Amino acid sequence: MFNTFGNRFRLTTFGESHGKCVGAVVDGCPSRLKLSAEDIQVQLDRRRPGQSRLTTARNESDVVRILSGVENGITLGSPIALAIDNLDRKPGDYTKMLNMPRPSHADLTYKLKYSILASSGGGRASARETVGRVAGGAVAEKFLVDRFGVKIVAWVSSVEGIDSPDLSEEKIEREDVDCNELRCPDLKSAAKMIAAIERAAKARDSVGGVVTCVCRNVPAGWGEPVFGKATALLAGAMLSIPACRGFEIGAGFAATRMRGSEHNDMYIRKGKTLGTVTNRSGGIQGGITNGEPVVFRVAFKPTASIGRAQRSADYKGKQVICEVGGRHDPCVVPRAVPIVEAMAALVFADIGLMAG
Amino acid sequence: MFNTFGNRFRLTTFGESHGKCVGAVVDGCPSRLKLSAEDIQVQLDRRRPGQSRLTTARNESDVVRILSGVENGITLGSPIALAIDNLDRKPGDYTKMLNMPRPSHADLTYKLKYSILASSGGGRASARETVGRVAGGAVAEKFLVDRFGVKIVAWVSSVEGIDSPDLSEEKIEREDVDCNELRCPDLKSAAKMIAAIERAAKARDSVGGVVTCVCRNVPAGWGEPVFGKATALLAGAMLSIPACRGFEIGAGFAATRMRGSEHNDMYIRKGKTLGTVTNRSGGIQGGITNGEPVVFRVAFKPTASIGRAQRSADYKGKQVICEVGGRHDPCVVPRAVPIVEAMAALVFADIGLMAG
Amino acid sequence: MFNTFGNRFRLTTFGESHGKCVGAVVDGCPSRLKLSAEDIQVQLDRRRPGQSRLTTARNESDVVRILSGVENGITLGSPIALAIDNLDRKPGDYTKMLNMPRPSHADLTYKLKYSILASSGGGRASARETVGRVAGGAVAEKFLVDRFGVKIVAWVSSVEGIDSPDLSEEKIEREDVDCNELRCPDLKSAAKMIAAIERAAKARDSVGGVVTCVCRNVPAGWGEPVFGKATALLAGAMLSIPACRGFEIGAGFAATRMRGSEHNDMYIRKGKTLGTVTNRSGGIQGGITNGEPVVFRVAFKPTASIGRAQRSADYKGKQVICEVGGRHDPCVVPRAVPIVEAMAALVFADIGLMAG
Amino acid sequence: MFNTFGNRFRLTTFGESHGKCVGAVVDGCPSRLKLSAEDIQVQLDRRRPGQSRLTTARNESDVVRILSGVENGITLGSPIALAIDNLDRKPGDYTKMLNMPRPSHADLTYKLKYSILASSGGGRASARETVGRVAGGAVAEKFLVDRFGVKIVAWVSSVEGIDSPDLSEEKIEREDVDCNELRCPDLKSAAKMIAAIERAAKARDSVGGVVTCVCRNVPAGWGEPVFGKATALLAGAMLSIPACRGFEIGAGFAATRMRGSEHNDMYIRKGKTLGTVTNRSGGIQGGITNGEPVVFRVAFKPTASIGRAQRSADYKGKQVICEVGGRHDPCVVPRAVPIVEAMAALVFADIGLMAG
Repeated sequence: MFNTFGNRFRLTTFGESHGKCVGAVVDGCPSRLKLSAEDIQVQLDRRRPGQSRLTTARNESDVVRILSGVENGITLGSPIALAIDNLDRKPGDYTKMLNMPRPSHADLTYKLKYSILASSGGGRASARETVGRVAGGAVAEKFLVDRFGVKIVAWVSSVEGIDSPDLSEEKIEREDVDCNELRCPDLKSAAKMIAAIERAAKARDSVGGVVTCVCRNVPAGWGEPVFGKATALLAGAMLSIPACRGFEIGAGFAATRMRGSEHNDMYIRKGKTLGTVTNRSGGIQGGITNGEPVVFRVAFKPTASIGRAQRSADYKGKQVICEVGGRHDPCVVPRAVPIVEAMAALVFADIGLMAG
Repeated sequence: MFNTFGNRFRLTTFGESHGKCVGAVVDGCPSRLKLSAEDIQVQLDRRRPGQSRLTTARNESDVVRILSGVENGITLGSPIALAIDNLDRKPGDYTKMLNMPRPSHADLTYKLKYSILASSGGGRASARETVGRVAGGAVAEKFLVDRFGVKIVAWVSSVEGIDSPDLSEEKIEREDVDCNELRCPDLKSAAKMIAAIERAAKARDSVGGVVTCVCRNVPAGWGEPVFGKATALLAGAMLSIPACRGFEIGAGFAATRMRGSEHNDMYIRKGKTLGTVTNRSGGIQGGITNGEPVVFRVAFKPTASIGRAQRSADYKGKQVICEVGGRHDPCVVPRAVPIVEAMAALVFADIGLMAG
Repeated sequence: MFNTFGNRFRLTTFGESHGKCVGAVVDGCPSRLKLSAEDIQVQLDRRRPGQSRLTTARNESDVVRILSGVENGITLGSPIALAIDNLDRKPGDYTKMLNMPRPSHADLTYKLKYSILASSGGGRASARETVGRVAGGAVAEKFLVDRFGVKIVAWVSSVEGIDSPDLSEEKIEREDVDCNELRCPDLKSAAKMIAAIERAAKARDSVGGVVTCVCRNVPAGWGEPVFGKATALLAGAMLSIPACRGFEIGAGFAATRMRGSEHNDMYIRKGKTLGTVTNRSGGIQGGITNGEPVVFRVAFKPTASIGRAQRSADYKGKQVICEVGGRHDPCVVPRAVPIVEAMAALVFADIGLMAG
Repeated sequence: MFNTFGNRFRLTTFGESHGKCVGAVVDGCPSRLKLSAEDIQVQLDRRRPGQSRLTTARNESDVVRILSGVENGITLGSPIALAIDNLDRKPGDYTKMLNMPRPSHADLTYKLKYSILASSGGGRASARETVGRVAGGAVAEKFLVDRFGVKIVAWVSSVEGIDSPDLSEEKIEREDVDCNELRCPDLKSAAKMIAAIERAAKARDSVGGVVTCVCRNVPAGWGEPVFGKATALLAGAMLSIPACRGFEIGAGFAATRMRGSEHNDMYIRKGKTLGTVTNRSGGIQGGITNGEPVVFRVAFKPTASIGRAQRSADYKGKQVICEVGGRHDPCVVPRAVPIVEAMAALVFADIGLMAG
């Protein structure tokens, strides 16, 4: 269970990393929405590995097929099933790992939970699991753009401690983000981050980083109080992404170092409604959107799979030297960008439908 | 909706801050568990305001009554309804605020969503809403302690940027935490934090801080992959707490500054099973517990209600000077400690039951 | 778990038959709805035992208190908690039953499931559990009446095989139903049914019967296809009522004896929209309402508690003579009328909110 | 939404009748269960049209492909995606109907709800939607058989008012059921029913009927009290099947004509546990299984699509003569047998997992 996300706009994903295909079923998407495979493909292409020398060389062409729910380019209101074949399966890569759990992977915990592991690759505990999220998120985004003009843009804002300047108040577009392979729209920081990744790759090591996401034009009044706060749903969505280790909204952890008089967002008239002068709340107050941009940051750990030998133990507890083969990213953060966008879109499509 | 938390172990809370009572219904608690009002009262007392000069003087005695689900001190398996009367209601305190939204409160967003506001206090968007969480969390904790020996302890680890040393590997107990009014078991740091809060209080201002939580003896193999990861459920639970702005598990945001070779937790034999040498994963890998302590940190913003005058706008957009009356904490973080523990208990009771 | 009903309009009930109180929390009720205790009390009074010589003499005054969610007679959008004290507890009545399961009661199955039984009465497996349903259903009905003009009326249409003529196309009102103690608006049939109940009561036996329910003015287009069909939700709601044994919509089981040409409802213009000439579909086609009255019938078995001695076995398997004490209805069906109405209201409030 | 069924054992179905494929995702199926395509195919073949002259001639070979969740014939605990291609699409058959809603079909209600209709066939409101149920139900059944030895067998017990003798206490097996094309194990009744269907077919008309289902070896103590009663879940599951109009458990509607002394099931020792002498409760008391066979009956209306001309109205309200083309069953009831079994399996797999 729990391969389903959302209440009204629901995504169910399926597929192991080295099985026949991965895919998703989107349920609850309103009827009469224009939707083509191309709307989905564009985000899948941004998630795809092998886009640059920074990410893994595994070549997954990841072509989406729409199996149901759409006719003549229009949604019917029925479930939209999406399938993406796994073309580039090389199960052999991983077989030598089978007698030991890879450090900081889910091998051990899956074995404890299921008493069985997919014979190769991570099964569901693989970055490939996110294909279904990105596909479903693209449908959610189409709905949000068409009905509300919501704009969701994420980018890499930190790698191995190298921070870009705060761009959350700039009107960054996806073209700005994609201007370099790192997906950091600040070119100067991007160059430094790329150098850091290359240093790590050379050392057969990996690095982590932060993705910042801004959602503009989210209608005010979305989200539920108490347990269904928009902040809670976003946090739950982000921490469900593989390798995610932290989430903060607005000023986030920095707010813990502020006084109330610094952190509070004062109201001011904006057109016919009230806005805030600053946006330290990140667009959400009491769990409900206030009409300002929703701004949050998501922390990703360094890739657990590294080329360097690691001293670990096998399933029997014997000390061994672990050398992880396979093809892996020295830094997953650039590819996490469309995944963060997808999860944000799924959250807002869901609370948008619940808002009536 | 969304006043219910959990799938198998479910908490539904109710009650406005200045209404007749606040309360909760716990559904799914197994039968034949010993449970008394005292088990719940002890945590309510830790949440209660007026415990020290650091927190609000509002005197809420918060006595819990068990209305159902328990007979002769034993749970029946039926819903456990809990009610706590609101004794100390002074609605008048807030009335002058009614023509303007308090900055960084939920007044505006609630009005946008519901087209009506509770006539006094924050209604559901009040710290008082957390009484039901703490009461329900105490039931969850009783279940976890009795069946699995789980130990959940949280404390204040940072206030206004003053950090205590990392104590997450020490076996901190609640008595250690409660040795001072701030609930920071490191006395030296506590003294500095208290001084910071007093400075802020004197300036009619407020400060934020961080709560660290450690859950020991959580069985390995708990949590679901993909969207129901234990990390995702914990993050969603924590971000649903009023004033929460961030969550990180294990190394968290610091992991983004590490290399894989630094961050990876190597395996080692521990008794009959595998453990890890370090615990940068915070006890959860691939969303599933690995048997190591679950360690996470929760960021709280400075209290939005401050005594200082603030330049803001009223509902009509007119610039006004906002002076918030009422009785408020200069720092909510010490009182957030039992709330964080409650939400952690609710998450683990839920995934524990789902684990079968 | 599973003391909660509904997705968007949710009812959670609590309370054992002989505990302190029974009650309910209604979550998801829209804000700005007029709601008073009297709106709820009127249906509780119809459910209450002791209304006539046909039903049990147990005197439960059943006064509802609204604990939250309503201020100045207006709903706030927050959870509405309702409590009804158990005034007339006589636990002693049942104690002699404790060593044997009462035939066709839930004593044995509860013991198998929970390994514990409430010390007296049926605990949650008691007709008293339905108080929370009726209270919550009254809130749902207020919402349906105010926003959509929906009219829900149920009545007794059969007792021990004595059928009243089909009145489902007449505009029966609750006053018509309440014109006699049996709640059958056809006086001639009512008299025969009352005589049957009196004969059974005299024989220290009980009888079953059927409740017919008609919901008028339900908007067309409500309900979900596939698993969330309005028929499916109604059937699930009705079969969750204690003693319910069957459900049929429209022509129901009689449809199995018809040909398609007899059963099909032909379309005809009705005002600006399409209606049907006949209503054998009972107002629901493909799981979605079509604007015609929703008509269904609910079967209730004879009360399991009878005064007559029964040959049964105790928990150890020993043959015993079972004589059930306590105060029980010879026929629950008249009191089931407001319960059926409550569950219908809860279903339609829920699918109404989901329909947007 | 609502294309998902179940809480712990969840089925999500997708696919329109004339689209690329239909399918299902099963989530929550335990790991280490043996599962092959053949386990699923055998029930799909029983659902398939064109098996006899009694059912439609549409030739759908309905070959299932397992896309995920199974490796080397063993379930992994991850979602099991199943796809069945639509080979025999003849959209043209239905096009002439597009300007009028077919009587007692879902054309009008779908149009009211979605403002769009699948361009041909019923889209989701088609008997073809049930392919996903049967496929998912076969997985649920495999789990129930392997872990608990549960046996689910359904058969046709009535057609157009012709009733077979009650066989619910006989140990009917699927081979007994499949001994004739009608799936009624009583050969004498079967012959009469077949004659009735042939008469109707000749008259270009259709007939309805009843399916009886018996589930043996269901463990005692399964089901939840109050809203999650096993009876409620079964009723909801059955009424979600296309063309279903009624449900009754045990004595069902006949119980309404009995006295308590007739209907009550007396206890008797059976081996080490208690059983009942009679089974008028149909194996469920207070919503929880008691270890006796679960017995229920499901009513199906006559097929709405008939060859005979019908006087109806088009979408504009104009009176028209409606002649439905396409290929349709004169009686769906034989093909409903595996669908009823599938839904029963899904209910019991779900409550079995919830029972711990």
